[in-house]
Amino acid sequence: MAAAAPPPAPTPAATALPNPTPTGHPLFSRVRLATPSDIPHIHKLIHQMAVFERLTHLFSATEASLSSTLFTSPPFQSFTIFILELSQAPFPPSPSPPLFFSPITQTTTLDLPIDDPESETFKSNDKDCGFDVVVGGFVLFFPNYSTFLGKPGFYVEDLFVRECYRRKGFGKMLLSAVAAQAVKMGYGRVEWVVLDWNVNAIKFYEEMGANVLQEWRICRLTGEALQAYANPAI
Amino acid sequence: MAAAAPPPAPTPAATALPNPTPTGHPLFSRVRLATPSDIPHIHKLIHQMAVFERLTHLFSATEASLSSTLFTSPPFQSFTIFILELSQAPFPPSPSPPLFFSPITQTTTLDLPIDDPESETFKSNDKDCGFDVVVGGFVLFFPNYSTFLGKPGFYVEDLFVRECYRRKGFGKMLLSAVAAQAVKMGYGRVEWVVLDWNVNAIKFYEEMGANVLQEWRICRLTGEALQAYANPAI
Repeated sequence: MAAAAPPPAPTPAATALPNPTPTGHPLFSRVRLATPSDIPHIHKLIHQMAVFERLTHLFSATEASLSSTLFTSPPFQSFTIFILELSQAPFPPSPSPPLFFSPITQTTTLDLPIDDPESETFKSNDKDCGFDVVVGGFVLFFPNYSTFLGKPGFYVEDLFVRECYRRKGFGKMLLSAVAAQAVKMGYGRVEWVVLDWNVNAIKFYEEMGANVLQEWRICRLTGEALQAYANPAI
Repeated sequence: MAAAAPPPAPTPAATALPNPTPTGHPLFSRVRLATPSDIPHIHKLIHQMAVFERLTHLFSATEASLSSTLFTSPPFQSFTIFILELSQAPFPPSPSPPLFFSPITQTTTLDLPIDDPESETFKSNDKDCGFDVVVGGFVLFFPNYSTFLGKPGFYVEDLFVRECYRRKGFGKMLLSAVAAQAVKMGYGRVEWVVLDWNVNAIKFYEEMGANVLQEWRICRLTGEALQAYANPAI
């Protein structure tokens, strides 16, 4: 997977306002740092992303390959994952100031409650809440570097929200969390890629303030063509 | 700077063969890991790249900003730089097995010697050779991640060779060194970007085995649009 996908909601409906009508249904959301115990959920989310993109033939990640390559550095120094969690009860405040990242919470008022057909499969591992929490999506990002700015930025490799939670502002919530972290760290940019025909996603990203660079193309050296470089000229 | 630039030689002329004619001029080259003492040279090379791309108005890196953001992790774990050095004398073998990377050497036979008008400015800091060595270029890269592969790769942010050393295979030598390191580490990909109108560079990269992905576009959130995310929804 090479990109932020699928597109988040073009018209985010998230709001932090109190429930405006007695018939509204509040949905509580939280963005927190992932931990190794989230890997089974992350693996399932990546697989859903591959299905969504009809790219399952390119999907070869396993829980073991994720375990051996993720969470090897402190958060934000290398590959970093934020998890989106959802609940019908408000999340409690963090018991103590977190070391790396204070979770971000938000309340969305819905006309109808969401029927999550996979709520058992995606039940969150966070035991501190005392009520049912489900994992609804994730964003994976890591530092990149601009030599012109002389400083790092973040590159967002994947942004994914499960189908039943789409078009409610959670994609924006995850991407905003990465942007806020970049600002906090004094970084210069947040970058990701989008398919040129995905006009809804492009509109959404532009509304978030991003520019789409039209002239650059990605070059990729992989598979046997990469293996051919095993022995450089000596 | 967002990309590998300028394009390396489309027809690399590098060879490790002995000098085939008495009139040939050997040029010895070496790719080694950069160290903090290379920062003044790296800063000048980045500035030359900005001039070449007519993007000096976007150039704000200083030696101080590079010093505070580079060389903060062991090589290959984060932002990593290989330096290209050139000499008219053969490089001696490394005195002891290097901890992270064994320098790669190559000999190029030229019809005419190269007149380097900046040989004093770019005199290398490596004191171990006992003869004059100049810095001719660099490549800056860092780990990226493929969730589909479940493993890291390398992203090449910049590839630059000084004008008088271009079209002699040194761009290929630098990029091959990154590819070889990726293979050595079991990584799945090496990626970079190219301008869609730069047909010579695209031809060169394709000859190196890379695929150019036509449908993806880079999205960039920067400047005031990024600063607007300083306070995410809570």
